[in-house]
Amino acid sequence: MEFGVCKQEMLQKKNAVLVDGVILNGPIMDSKAGEKFVEDACKIIMEEVVQKADDVTEKVCEWQAPEKLKQILDLEMRDTGECHQKVLQLCRDVIKYSVKTNHPRFFNQLYAGIDYYSLVARFITEALNPSVYTYEVSPVFLLVEEAVIKKMIEFIGWEEGDGIFNPGGSVSNMYAMNLARYKFCPEIKEKGLSGLPRLVLFASEECHYSMKKAASFLGIGTENVYFIKTDERGKMIPEELEKQVQRARKEGSAPFLVCATAGTTVLGAFDPLDKIADICEKHGLWFHVDMVERGMWLESVLELRPAVTLKAKKYSTIKAKSKIQASWGGSALISRKHRRLLHGIHRADSVAWNPHKMLLAGIQCCALLVKDNTGLLKKCYSAEAAYLFQQDKFYDVSYDTGDKSIQCSRRPDAFKFWLMWKALGTTGLEERVNRALALARYLVEEIKKREGFQLLLEPEYANVCFWYIPPSLRKMEDGPEFWQKLHQVSVMCYLRFTD
Amino acid sequence: MEFGVCKQEMLQKKNAVLVDGVILNGPIMDSKAGEKFVEDACKIIMEEVVQKADDVTEKVCEWQAPEKLKQILDLEMRDTGECHQKVLQLCRDVIKYSVKTNHPRFFNQLYAGIDYYSLVARFITEALNPSVYTYEVSPVFLLVEEAVIKKMIEFIGWEEGDGIFNPGGSVSNMYAMNLARYKFCPEIKEKGLSGLPRLVLFASEECHYSMKKAASFLGIGTENVYFIKTDERGKMIPEELEKQVQRARKEGSAPFLVCATAGTTVLGAFDPLDKIADICEKHGLWFHVDMVERGMWLESVLELRPAVTLKAKKYSTIKAKSKIQASWGGSALISRKHRRLLHGIHRADSVAWNPHKMLLAGIQCCALLVKDNTGLLKKCYSAEAAYLFQQDKFYDVSYDTGDKSIQCSRRPDAFKFWLMWKALGTTGLEERVNRALALARYLVEEIKKREGFQLLLEPEYANVCFWYIPPSLRKMEDGPEFWQKLHQVSVMCYLRFTD
Repeated sequence: MEFGVCKQEMLQKKNAVLVDGVILNGPIMDSKAGEKFVEDACKIIMEEVVQKADDVTEKVCEWQAPEKLKQILDLEMRDTGECHQKVLQLCRDVIKYSVKTNHPRFFNQLYAGIDYYSLVARFITEALNPSVYTYEVSPVFLLVEEAVIKKMIEFIGWEEGDGIFNPGGSVSNMYAMNLARYKFCPEIKEKGLSGLPRLVLFASEECHYSMKKAASFLGIGTENVYFIKTDERGKMIPEELEKQVQRARKEGSAPFLVCATAGTTVLGAFDPLDKIADICEKHGLWFHVDMVERGMWLESVLELRPAVTLKAKKYSTIKAKSKIQASWGGSALISRKHRRLLHGIHRADSVAWNPHKMLLAGIQCCALLVKDNTGLLKKCYSAEAAYLFQQDKFYDVSYDTGDKSIQCSRRPDAFKFWLMWKALGTTGLEERVNRALALARYLVEEIKKREGFQLLLEPEYANVCFWYIPPSLRKMEDGPEFWQKLHQVSVMCYLRFTD
Repeated sequence: MEFGVCKQEMLQKKNAVLVDGVILNGPIMDSKAGEKFVEDACKIIMEEVVQKADDVTEKVCEWQAPEKLKQILDLEMRDTGECHQKVLQLCRDVIKYSVKTNHPRFFNQLYAGIDYYSLVARFITEALNPSVYTYEVSPVFLLVEEAVIKKMIEFIGWEEGDGIFNPGGSVSNMYAMNLARYKFCPEIKEKGLSGLPRLVLFASEECHYSMKKAASFLGIGTENVYFIKTDERGKMIPEELEKQVQRARKEGSAPFLVCATAGTTVLGAFDPLDKIADICEKHGLWFHVDMVERGMWLESVLELRPAVTLKAKKYSTIKAKSKIQASWGGSALISRKHRRLLHGIHRADSVAWNPHKMLLAGIQCCALLVKDNTGLLKKCYSAEAAYLFQQDKFYDVSYDTGDKSIQCSRRPDAFKFWLMWKALGTTGLEERVNRALALARYLVEEIKKREGFQLLLEPEYANVCFWYIPPSLRKMEDGPEFWQKLHQVSVMCYLRFTD
């Protein structure tokens, strides 16, 4: 700690105000030294992270096992602080031993690569350190969020709507579930679920695990998520949904929600939205679409190597992305060429969309969008805290959107998406989506050509599922031993990247 | 968009791979231009935000009403992207019209000021863009989170425990509520609340509004939060709690949780934790302590002016903080001098603690800490997603803590607290807590001396509640008109800061 100022020296100054042993009006911190520290650290960040982002010769990660890494890093927080040089060294070590998700060879879940615009937006956000609950503290960020939500709604195809950015797609799905429940029976907000019939919701058996988490957290119960059978491509079978809704009704339970998945975790399957919308309409069920894309990412399909296999369930799945930088529309919505995959999306009551994955807006950037424009979101979530949401302010308090959230402090996540969109334009985003799908197509052709690679199925989207069968297993018979050995391949591969 | 490369030019190159009209192996982005953009933007951030952070002569905010600000900012996202110079100008405008929460005169809710170490940690986080679910993608950040949680547990006074960082104190309170419910009846995770007796929880009538939000979200219902009367200082009255628990039992409902507040929003009151712990023990109730500090902040009490009044409920409340920089322990826990306020905290089953407010770790940095060390957190929250949490990895998968969370992608928020703690040391943090409370004491003495200021009550913590009565109202009789006019004072004051 270099900011300490000698107490004796301060006390000798005129007008020193001493209260409870503390000199109140003395400088407690040297802001110039603080600024110098930030400058020095920024230099390290630029050199070690940003400039190395597209350098394939750099390591993805200086891998260490947990116990070893604990020894290397000086994790202990002590009574006495460290000098700036030591703290800067800590910063270097943190970077050194962290996984570079920007790296062209980062093939783990969900995202990879760097977007310079969203990165700058995030730096601005951290420097300003705002919280978006009221217009008076976040004027710019609230207007930006409004503009981004409006634009996303336009792409979904709704005439109007509402929305909010949340800390993650899983949380967005929870929001939708709670909103659907509120619409079904507003009294639940005050009375709770006790004594009510069993609420039941429907999602495909390939849906994301956040459906179960949400059902558990919201007091609905994981058993009341009825999983609908999927076809051989991983898409929900509408006839099976119809059957399950009828089964729930016969049981005397209360069906209230169907969650369709647009881009499943493993196969990248799109549920047939239009047909599901028909069933929802018929039975009066809330129709939510989870288009929070998931899966692994392949940075450079042009350099396909055995090492790129990664295990997920029983097969490897890789989302193809551009060589240097990827940014998909959080879905195919952005691409005029590929948005047909989401045919029927405009009939949804709510949509979860994560620009932080394919669009590279940075963790976390996740929106829940709602078709309703009668204030349902606010009615469902508001608690009307008097200390934050006074109604007698000197501006239009409808801009104080914080009460639509389960959070109090909330980050301005829409801003990073906005700045990126401004810089690239819709056309720039669209080009990336098209490029990503072209890369997936290329990968498929490569897999077909190369020995030891076995395509699981023709992808309709960007998830390419295949097996890499190493030479030692190519002559082996299909059976438990074969599959056990094959599964080990993906684990071994990870090590290759970090060597 | 300056990164576009002429397609014709690329096609003429050897080995161009064209798929679906996309050239796959051409550069789609000039990373040097991207890096230059980041450098230019960082310069703006340093000059316009960081270096101006402690300059009282700068404006807190270039205030504009919503409709006017929309006109000024170019919010529309278009088909075509903007050039770097235009995007840099947008960054300048965003900064210009945003509220500077770092500013010495920022007196709105929850926090103010700048901490250079946590800021650097946040920059590192944004550049690396990690997600903390598995050790393989976030080795450093998961170990850091473990170390920070261990240290926080030490300060609470537990021998062991568990914990997780969440997107906000409200979410931490939800986690605790769900955890208490799971402990009360693990079957709820699968079966839900339907058909069960009415669950009831207890919190003081001065508790944070997140209790109601949580009860609503979790399907418990806001009416099943029994609000316990407080004394004249805003503290929960234990005898009233006892009565309400008995009332709930008589009604045939199922009491399961008591939420005590350590530092209420307005008065900064500390519920009597030790006595509440007795009642919880007697009745077998989960004991949660919400020590997510709230209220407004006073940057510079040495320059007390009428303008510092801000309305909350019926009185003004201001948390005193150091002149240049404030950082309290997220509570008084860090200070040997003041931790007596939290006497009995070690008896809690769970604690919500936000280092992002008083400790200035940056939005958001919020921990839920749990005394249980038998894996309750994981049992309660896990969904065991196969694509993320494989059990056959090549390292100890107990470090894959993501399944303790309701989130999938999760930010490494513990890191900013850790780097700050490393730099300042516990002593540095402690000095700030002591300083903040000394400032509060000074403010109280000033209020007593100055005409037109009326102290509401002697504070026990850092919330100083008082009225500023302007000259025009000083001779007026107490009555509805007087209060109506007095309430308007706080709204008018806000304008002063932004002029």
